[in-house]
Amino acid sequence: MPETEALASWIVANRIACVPDDVRHEARRAIVNYLGCALGGSRDEAVDLAIRAFGVHSGPPTATVLGRAEKLDPLHASLMNGISSHVYDFDDTTPKNYMHPTSPVASALFAYASANHVSGRDFMDAFITGFEAEMRIGNAVYPAHYDVGWHITGTAGIFGAAAAIGKLLGLSVQQMVWNIGLAATQAAGIREMFGSMAKSLHAGRAAQNGYASALLAQSGFTAGVHGLEGPRGFAAVLASRYDLSKITSGLGTDWELRANTYKPFPCGIVNHPTIDGAIQLHNEHHAAPESIAAVRLRVAPLVLDLCNQTNITKGLQGKFSVYHGAAIGLVRGKAGIQEYTDETVNDPPVKRVRELATAVGDVALTEDQAHIEVELVDGRKLTRFVEKSLGNIHRPLTDRQLSDKFRDQAVLALPAAKIEELIEQTWRIDELAAVNELIIGTCGS
Amino acid sequence: MPETEALASWIVANRIACVPDDVRHEARRAIVNYLGCALGGSRDEAVDLAIRAFGVHSGPPTATVLGRAEKLDPLHASLMNGISSHVYDFDDTTPKNYMHPTSPVASALFAYASANHVSGRDFMDAFITGFEAEMRIGNAVYPAHYDVGWHITGTAGIFGAAAAIGKLLGLSVQQMVWNIGLAATQAAGIREMFGSMAKSLHAGRAAQNGYASALLAQSGFTAGVHGLEGPRGFAAVLASRYDLSKITSGLGTDWELRANTYKPFPCGIVNHPTIDGAIQLHNEHHAAPESIAAVRLRVAPLVLDLCNQTNITKGLQGKFSVYHGAAIGLVRGKAGIQEYTDETVNDPPVKRVRELATAVGDVALTEDQAHIEVELVDGRKLTRFVEKSLGNIHRPLTDRQLSDKFRDQAVLALPAAKIEELIEQTWRIDELAAVNELIIGTCGS
Repeated sequence: MPETEALASWIVANRIACVPDDVRHEARRAIVNYLGCALGGSRDEAVDLAIRAFGVHSGPPTATVLGRAEKLDPLHASLMNGISSHVYDFDDTTPKNYMHPTSPVASALFAYASANHVSGRDFMDAFITGFEAEMRIGNAVYPAHYDVGWHITGTAGIFGAAAAIGKLLGLSVQQMVWNIGLAATQAAGIREMFGSMAKSLHAGRAAQNGYASALLAQSGFTAGVHGLEGPRGFAAVLASRYDLSKITSGLGTDWELRANTYKPFPCGIVNHPTIDGAIQLHNEHHAAPESIAAVRLRVAPLVLDLCNQTNITKGLQGKFSVYHGAAIGLVRGKAGIQEYTDETVNDPPVKRVRELATAVGDVALTEDQAHIEVELVDGRKLTRFVEKSLGNIHRPLTDRQLSDKFRDQAVLALPAAKIEELIEQTWRIDELAAVNELIIGTCGS
Repeated sequence: MPETEALASWIVANRIACVPDDVRHEARRAIVNYLGCALGGSRDEAVDLAIRAFGVHSGPPTATVLGRAEKLDPLHASLMNGISSHVYDFDDTTPKNYMHPTSPVASALFAYASANHVSGRDFMDAFITGFEAEMRIGNAVYPAHYDVGWHITGTAGIFGAAAAIGKLLGLSVQQMVWNIGLAATQAAGIREMFGSMAKSLHAGRAAQNGYASALLAQSGFTAGVHGLEGPRGFAAVLASRYDLSKITSGLGTDWELRANTYKPFPCGIVNHPTIDGAIQLHNEHHAAPESIAAVRLRVAPLVLDLCNQTNITKGLQGKFSVYHGAAIGLVRGKAGIQEYTDETVNDPPVKRVRELATAVGDVALTEDQAHIEVELVDGRKLTRFVEKSLGNIHRPLTDRQLSDKFRDQAVLALPAAKIEELIEQTWRIDELAAVNELIIGTCGS
């Protein structure tokens, strides 16, 4: 059976009852991580500007924009959710193909579920199905597709949104084949946009256009039936090398959700082991900032290629400074959104410790490792070697750490009093009679 | 200066006063041809289904959908105009890169001008600028881009719509650079969709998403500034070989509009010389269908690869039958939309002549040539050799033939009484105080 038809058949047939418990729990973790990121990014200027551009063109405002007071039609709400959840690059990442897989799927699903009745069980069913579909398509074209310059979160993500919404709409296999074709022919997003707001637009358009594909297919709008495998299909046109067997091999038995990871810190991932070690030293020694005389880092050479910024005054620059990472870990014992503001970057104790820090590249270290030596003014030395950074697939964030990450971001959009209930509800999203019970708690004001 | 910035600067600066008269007239011809196609396709099922899918998500209905009674927001109206104008593959074609160049640009412009005041002069200014921009980008990546499987009408067309709407919005050069980047990162459409409704979606999405790019850029939403020429930009990611100098070389002095062509017949272009010759024989001899004893065609071998269908019962099959082309030319003396309906295909005189027709491939003929021999029952033979088919760049449709083509299509959407005034207005579109004077005459009922 051709891959498009095989995948469409599986999307239609898959049921949450067939999904193992650990995979379902990983789906909950992905959604907790997603919703925190969407709330955290919801007040970013990129979202403000996109609402300014499109708000007057929105249809009836039946759908919630996560973290915002504005309501929009579900397609535009999908777009905004995608932008907000990806704009800080703090959403999940799959080391297998470098997708940020949850944003396109969940951004469309939350928009749909805010405007239509969707049970928690059906929501999870659609989420898991969409996640698996997009990841398998991403795996089939990775790495040639990514290497040439496609932003795989946009190009493969659209299939996840299309599959998830198509499943909730109850598409037939024929309609789901068209849905996949319509997604294939709208797949877009190039890496040249990295460093601009357009990067987060990719996740948003993937959500919105995947949703739109499902609506078109539902109406009977036809597409080519070999959208993935055809000689002028997605794989052949968007990748110089690909392996279509990755779409169908182990489908329904091997679960891509098990390979998902969550960033503990909202900055370049190569800074993570340094921050991780600095936080550990903070938690164990509580050395006052003024007691620190020197900070010596040994890191993988790539870190100094990517994150060697000094003399920084802006929060955004801090994301590209391993010295700032060490400083916030040692001084604050954490590295959340608040540690990458302009204010924190210019906070005197943070600034002082950052300027005491030096780093050398060491080819013996992987990008997941770092060595930190803190010399105190009394001459004592505190050292820490991080062998596998927190957030790595082998050392995942705990559920509690994911709740903390949610809380840290949600305060940017919601009163603290609403957050604890929202966290608790999100962990049991699949038990909710209607997902909108949860979504109404995410409306900012 | 990098190509993106150079093109953005030209788009902002270009003025209709700098455009030679013959180019302005070619722009009028392109718009007459476009508007007829949009009206002719406006009642197609693809448009019905797209409105069914998206109508409930439309924003305030301030914009006209050409040929329809429904109004939608301007972005959705752009989409529908793009689908209707391309759905019969009867719109213009540029032999240099196989784009259908007018649909993405004019579909967005008519939607914009139906919801906002736009003078005819500004409309033409924006149209010509958008047309030139998209064609130059298409030329830069053709043929590698097309050959790998991209539908260039979608992928390059989005730049035309973005440029045209961006010009009407009065974007700065900085905003126009973002606009081009936002278009580059939304460029999409694969040839695997040919033969399905999704092909016409490409033109529609190009119009809609180009328009959306301009709105985003106007709001200040940022994009990478090397959208075209960057190492992960449009050209590098979507073409294995490209020549960026084609974007800027001769910009503002060489005009791509001069290389545009208009199809006389709504079917595969390789049938055109046969139809052309058959119509000439009809006009000269008026042989009654029952007087015809045999029809012998000599055509380029490719014609028999592509258009060898016999025993046909559906209008769509007729488009892929050189025998049907010969029959309608000889019997009806024309080959418009009405000659490709199920009814005409089953019309006894047409069916009889079609079934008398035979064809042989002749390697001495180009795809632009055909030889026809009609043997009458009285033994006389009528012959015609077509050396260059009507519609070819060297034998373009006359203005009058373009008006006839408009009329033939517009009757599908509008009462005949409205059509003549509309044709007359369209030929002088650049003199109108407001383009909406014309657009209100295109609303179907």
